Amino acid sequence: MIDAERSPLLTDLYQLTMLEAYFENDLEQTAVFEFFVRRLPDQRNFLVAAGLEHVLEFLEGLRFDPEELDWLARCGKFKPGFVDRLASLRFTGDVDAMPEGTVFFADEPILRVAAPMPEAQLVESRLVNLLHLQTLIASKGARCVLTAPDKVLVDFGMRRAHGAEAAMAAARASYLAGFAATATVLAEQRFGIPTVGTMAHSFVQAHDEEEQAFLRFARCHPGNAVLLIDTYDTIRGAHKVVELAPRLAAEGIQVRGVRIDSGDLCEMSREVRAILDAGGCRELKIFLSGSLDEYRLGELLAADTPADGFGIGTHLDVSQDAPSLDCVYKLQEYAGVARRKRSSGKATWPGRKQVFRHLDAAGQLSADVLGLVDEKASGRALLEPVMAGGRRLAPAPALESVREYCSRQLAALPDALRALGPAGEPYPVRVSDGLKALAARVDASFA
Amino acid sequence: MIDAERSPLLTDLYQLTMLEAYFENDLEQTAVFEFFVRRLPDQRNFLVAAGLEHVLEFLEGLRFDPEELDWLARCGKFKPGFVDRLASLRFTGDVDAMPEGTVFFADEPILRVAAPMPEAQLVESRLVNLLHLQTLIASKGARCVLTAPDKVLVDFGMRRAHGAEAAMAAARASYLAGFAATATVLAEQRFGIPTVGTMAHSFVQAHDEEEQAFLRFARCHPGNAVLLIDTYDTIRGAHKVVELAPRLAAEGIQVRGVRIDSGDLCEMSREVRAILDAGGCRELKIFLSGSLDEYRLGELLAADTPADGFGIGTHLDVSQDAPSLDCVYKLQEYAGVARRKRSSGKATWPGRKQVFRHLDAAGQLSADVLGLVDEKASGRALLEPVMAGGRRLAPAPALESVREYCSRQLAALPDALRALGPAGEPYPVRVSDGLKALAARVDASFA
Repeated sequence: MIDAERSPLLTDLYQLTMLEAYFENDLEQTAVFEFFVRRLPDQRNFLVAAGLEHVLEFLEGLRFDPEELDWLARCGKFKPGFVDRLASLRFTGDVDAMPEGTVFFADEPILRVAAPMPEAQLVESRLVNLLHLQTLIASKGARCVLTAPDKVLVDFGMRRAHGAEAAMAAARASYLAGFAATATVLAEQRFGIPTVGTMAHSFVQAHDEEEQAFLRFARCHPGNAVLLIDTYDTIRGAHKVVELAPRLAAEGIQVRGVRIDSGDLCEMSREVRAILDAGGCRELKIFLSGSLDEYRLGELLAADTPADGFGIGTHLDVSQDAPSLDCVYKLQEYAGVARRKRSSGKATWPGRKQVFRHLDAAGQLSADVLGLVDEKASGRALLEPVMAGGRRLAPAPALESVREYCSRQLAALPDALRALGPAGEPYPVRVSDGLKALAARVDASFA
Repeated sequence: MIDAERSPLLTDLYQLTMLEAYFENDLEQTAVFEFFVRRLPDQRNFLVAAGLEHVLEFLEGLRFDPEELDWLARCGKFKPGFVDRLASLRFTGDVDAMPEGTVFFADEPILRVAAPMPEAQLVESRLVNLLHLQTLIASKGARCVLTAPDKVLVDFGMRRAHGAEAAMAAARASYLAGFAATATVLAEQRFGIPTVGTMAHSFVQAHDEEEQAFLRFARCHPGNAVLLIDTYDTIRGAHKVVELAPRLAAEGIQVRGVRIDSGDLCEMSREVRAILDAGGCRELKIFLSGSLDEYRLGELLAADTPADGFGIGTHLDVSQDAPSLDCVYKLQEYAGVARRKRSSGKATWPGRKQVFRHLDAAGQLSADVLGLVDEKASGRALLEPVMAGGRRLAPAPALESVREYCSRQLAALPDALRALGPAGEPYPVRVSDGLKALAARVDASFA
């Protein structure tokens, strides 16, 4: 079976039909496309760029395998000469991009591709697919991290992520945004992300006595067991843990903590904390889970819920309150001439652009300027060259360093943008005079 | 790189830590787990079961490869004996399930696994992941199909689906639910789903003159070109199509239609239809796209928008208004004893269950009964044996026949459930006396 994550056939049919027409009409000059989000979801004051590493991997590995070429030749949609051209197609272009973990806003390109038109066009669908997903989750994860900066946050969402790639992307993007760990085993194997876990209700239910389930699990995982105490009655579960702790301690086994997954989490945490403390189990941690997101985290912390860690599942992995971004990959220049889509409500800024960021005296974000790459604008230029001639300019940075960079990016967010609700004023992104003038010239050429 | 779609490491860490404890304590008797949705999203009156075929593929192929075993042995979390046990682990259990395409409701199991505890437990995370995604999209797609039963609906959502597997699942699940086609090329290669496509704004923008872009695309794809007319000005675009049509006809080339992707789609469609008709292009179809979903479809059709087909993208592929389902896979019996989770707000019905469906005289769904497998209940039993001893009982049905079955299922929906808004009364799912009695007995055993 063809691997969908790698295959250039994971694309929209029109990319291939357009390619055929590009080849037939020698439209193979340099095209410049930019990826940006047209409008932030109402529930987002900022976004966190992610997915670049997978885009670069995809571009470096782009090729049609014999099985794919054979199918294209047989599917009845294309001329034989076109399939022959595809056989030798590789990505030979240049890419500039914001580093993963960069905070960005509407209309700001986070990635620019400059490549011969057929190559730049073909990669659109998958490139959008990769950047959209990881940016979506990193942005959601960052909101959780900003809400609970001192707590242990863990990605618990694999089972309801939208498929295998989404689960892996969610583990990576949330870790990048500051999560401490994930429950997804393959994410540790592939990305080196720490994994943690507790136990499921089924383990408790498989025993006639809850105590026995706790004892067996703790003995199997000495020092590392987090016992799930809400299968039947959370309070009774907590008392059982207190009763068992000395017996286990006599065997040299320390229980790490308890998890509560249902009921009034704040009230239950308080009662359980009191039971554990009164029973000499002060060092046991309390982990909470169950339909948590940044809003719920905020409520729990505002109520001084005595929890040490939180498993954030479905709401993180599907970005429940904003499950998609209005992101696009648009042609801004072809054959050296700036281009502009003028569709009603969907007009774009033409030309090769750069984002210039300004900080205030305290190091907080104060304003961005959307300008042209060759403008002499002040501020830090956020898009950097990452690929030239189809090859990466540097090896992929370690995920840990991306995570630290993202942490510094989040630390520079002004308070209004950190709020979970809408910022009073959107963050200022000014369009440079040079860019406005170019847009006017492009429009005039169509008048 | 390990293939995430196949790997048993795409699971939650606790599945493996529980397995270690199951093995150490000889908890290997038969466990019965059921997958069901606890509560429908507010925006859904029914759901459509999908994903079973991929679950069966996953179960049949379940094994730890040498690379996976080697990593598990080295990761420092498990004892060597456990990794040895995993090496020989296969899925040897039985599965009963509702056929893909079956309409179902809250609390109704759509799949039951009966297998030795470690096997039944291990597969939880991925099994939920697969059933959740495809059921989510099939259910969203069915709402679109019910809203626009006579229109050509096409999945356009690959680029903003949550990753590669989600894009493939969306193409399949929406087709199963009655969509006519997808734009995702790999879905035709893998599943035989028809693909269609139009052209992108970039193709138009790459030309100095829109006319030239239209001519070249039509000549490259004679008989099959759908021209995108909203890049600069939709009305002028429509006039250009009318002007070009006779020139192309003289070359023996028929344009198939036009696409409009922005602006007031209803008003634009009317004006464009009038221009095409007045210009002798009555046979040209109008396709619409741009943030469409079942609600927008309903508005457009209520306003008699003269469109022939619709591209439904992001909102379908991420199930925008309800991006997740509250679905679970719960232990209902172990070692012959019925089990019940009693967590606050998350209690389950114990035992091996069956769903019995009743139709009214007109063949419409009238009521379901949630009962025990061995109850002599009337109505059609919806869960059927599909796997025994780890092997499928029959080859996978053709996707076309699943699609026809789903179409009959949707045809049997009463009007209240077809509505896009909440049904006045939820569909009646009665709990049988036998099941209530069993639940009471299980509770009493814990008193």
